[in-house]
Amino acid sequence: MKIVIAPDSFKGSVSAQEAALSIERGVRRAYTHAETVLVPVADGGEGTMENLVAATNGQEIEVAVTGPLGLPVQAKFGVLGDQQTCVIEMASASGLHTIEASERNPLKATTYGTGELIKRALDMGYRDFVLALGGSATNDGGAGMLQALGLKLLDQSGREIGYGGGELEKLAQVESEQLDQRIKESHFLIASDVDNPFIGENGASYVFGPQKGATPEMVEILDHNLSHWADLIEETTNIRVHDRPGAGAAGGIGGAFQAFFPAEMKRGIDVVLDYMNLAEKLVNADLVITGEGQVDFQTAYGKTPMGVAEMAKKQHVPTIIVAGSVGEKIEALYPYGVIGIYSMVNGPMKLEEAIDNAEILLEQVAEQLCRTYFYNRQ
Amino acid sequence: MKIVIAPDSFKGSVSAQEAALSIERGVRRAYTHAETVLVPVADGGEGTMENLVAATNGQEIEVAVTGPLGLPVQAKFGVLGDQQTCVIEMASASGLHTIEASERNPLKATTYGTGELIKRALDMGYRDFVLALGGSATNDGGAGMLQALGLKLLDQSGREIGYGGGELEKLAQVESEQLDQRIKESHFLIASDVDNPFIGENGASYVFGPQKGATPEMVEILDHNLSHWADLIEETTNIRVHDRPGAGAAGGIGGAFQAFFPAEMKRGIDVVLDYMNLAEKLVNADLVITGEGQVDFQTAYGKTPMGVAEMAKKQHVPTIIVAGSVGEKIEALYPYGVIGIYSMVNGPMKLEEAIDNAEILLEQVAEQLCRTYFYNRQ
Repeated sequence: MKIVIAPDSFKGSVSAQEAALSIERGVRRAYTHAETVLVPVADGGEGTMENLVAATNGQEIEVAVTGPLGLPVQAKFGVLGDQQTCVIEMASASGLHTIEASERNPLKATTYGTGELIKRALDMGYRDFVLALGGSATNDGGAGMLQALGLKLLDQSGREIGYGGGELEKLAQVESEQLDQRIKESHFLIASDVDNPFIGENGASYVFGPQKGATPEMVEILDHNLSHWADLIEETTNIRVHDRPGAGAAGGIGGAFQAFFPAEMKRGIDVVLDYMNLAEKLVNADLVITGEGQVDFQTAYGKTPMGVAEMAKKQHVPTIIVAGSVGEKIEALYPYGVIGIYSMVNGPMKLEEAIDNAEILLEQVAEQLCRTYFYNRQ
Repeated sequence: MKIVIAPDSFKGSVSAQEAALSIERGVRRAYTHAETVLVPVADGGEGTMENLVAATNGQEIEVAVTGPLGLPVQAKFGVLGDQQTCVIEMASASGLHTIEASERNPLKATTYGTGELIKRALDMGYRDFVLALGGSATNDGGAGMLQALGLKLLDQSGREIGYGGGELEKLAQVESEQLDQRIKESHFLIASDVDNPFIGENGASYVFGPQKGATPEMVEILDHNLSHWADLIEETTNIRVHDRPGAGAAGGIGGAFQAFFPAEMKRGIDVVLDYMNLAEKLVNADLVITGEGQVDFQTAYGKTPMGVAEMAKKQHVPTIIVAGSVGEKIEALYPYGVIGIYSMVNGPMKLEEAIDNAEILLEQVAEQLCRTYFYNRQ
């Protein structure tokens, strides 16, 4: 029997790698001679870069760039083991985690640092990019990133506008002559789980602005400004991002990629699973075990277990999910070929106890589910 | 598919019946048209009588008898649905639960009330008995029970000795002429999980005396007295209970049954499962689901899930166990055909939360394990 073990990390507890090893020990307790293939994964949000770098034996490069509020931050990007592909998490340069909660201000926050990261990678000769969106502090429609890469955003008197979504209302003219030409020679795979449009009530400002510190009044300003920016993008590129799905990702940086870059958008989990060659590893598997800290109906919206299950289903391999905590309406996962969803928790206990004992608990539940599943297959 | 659902109660939470119904709902969520057979069981300890009475649509009869310390207690025995079999729990008349913890005293405590229960049932015409041992406050080697049924236990001056294990040292002579003759016309099935001998370091006094309130000094006296009583039993009946397995059950009442009664000893769980016709209900089943509040290696010592699994294994039906809490070394249960042991707990939570939500939690885990188990069988 062949079992593919492809968990996410269990946040605050074990890494994806530790989870995979624990589950493998449980599988071996049930069947000593089982063939196991470990594919520790993380979804397309924060952590993707580290995960892909680790999975491909790549490396990380540290760069000082402009943080969301203009102060320098130490950001990093990854180069995969192929020595060709650059993985950039925009959160590294422009993320909420780089600033204090009290300083959150999407009127001011800029994606300039993300542009600097791209520029640095271009300077080093890279042309294949994976851009992981998510976790951004910004709502500037990617304007800062484009400024860092040479796009001129000018006000009525021909002066460059400043940083942040609040400045975009001053925008009168876009000059793209000096936009870095190497962008056109490159390929950008955008990893994003967000289908929201650029503007409107489902757009970047209304849906994600508040979690970045926007008050209701600020949300209105931000949406208004992005609408103005979208008009100018259309004028400049003939691409209309206003209502385009995915354009609203990460404060509208999705739209900037769609309009100015040779870019392709994919769900984060699919990008990761592609780079991890999961499809190939699934060939002739009898079972996939995946999991993460919390599994519920939201897991069906592009999280790791669902991405793994979906890919496994294409090859008619069933998936069992193990989780720290199993929430509500998990039947939403059944259509993806999920034939069992189990908590690793083996009795009443505190969260800290579950976290501390995650490895042994995962081992135990993996052993049990293998015994149950393979009984009829032996 | 046919699924037999045979859980014990989940102590402090759901009854066996409620557990069975919850598990059945989970099974039906997985497979609407599954054939389910519900066999709620309880093991041979306290509660057996109520359970067998309920399972067979029998009735309970209340009787005032002598409690362990000589005061009257309201005890009851059951008559099974066959209207022939009387089920007596000795704990009902002579149990620890009938007295305050501070009053525990195995030197004084008597099984007289248990004898009265038997006598009352004989008077009513019953000759088929199930005696459930366990939970007794006594260490009198069944002497009190035999006194109630007419056996004369006399001291050197020909006077009847008093109640309790402390009195047995005075015993000089046993007269069995007046022992109720109807005992010989009867059959006694003794439900007991205890293999301990009558006396010695593995005997009734040393092993079970302390939990009945015996100090180390009292344990020595009790064992000494039981040894003397065993000698007189042998003199009277030619049956040597001293080292006989099971004779040490319930303060030595096991030995009294072995010597003076037409009695057969069985594990409690086997008695219960026999009366519930589990073997018959297992015919052509695809799976058994059993469970109880706490499952661990001790479950292998005659508790419900193990009794159910063992019986199922004889018919090559695999068993899955669900529990409130899954403890250590559960691999001890694998030899009984157990192919999965799962906690119903679906994430970190307090005991009270698990207890309060047992029904929905059982339903959820039952659904999952059916989905996993039957995937390869469809």
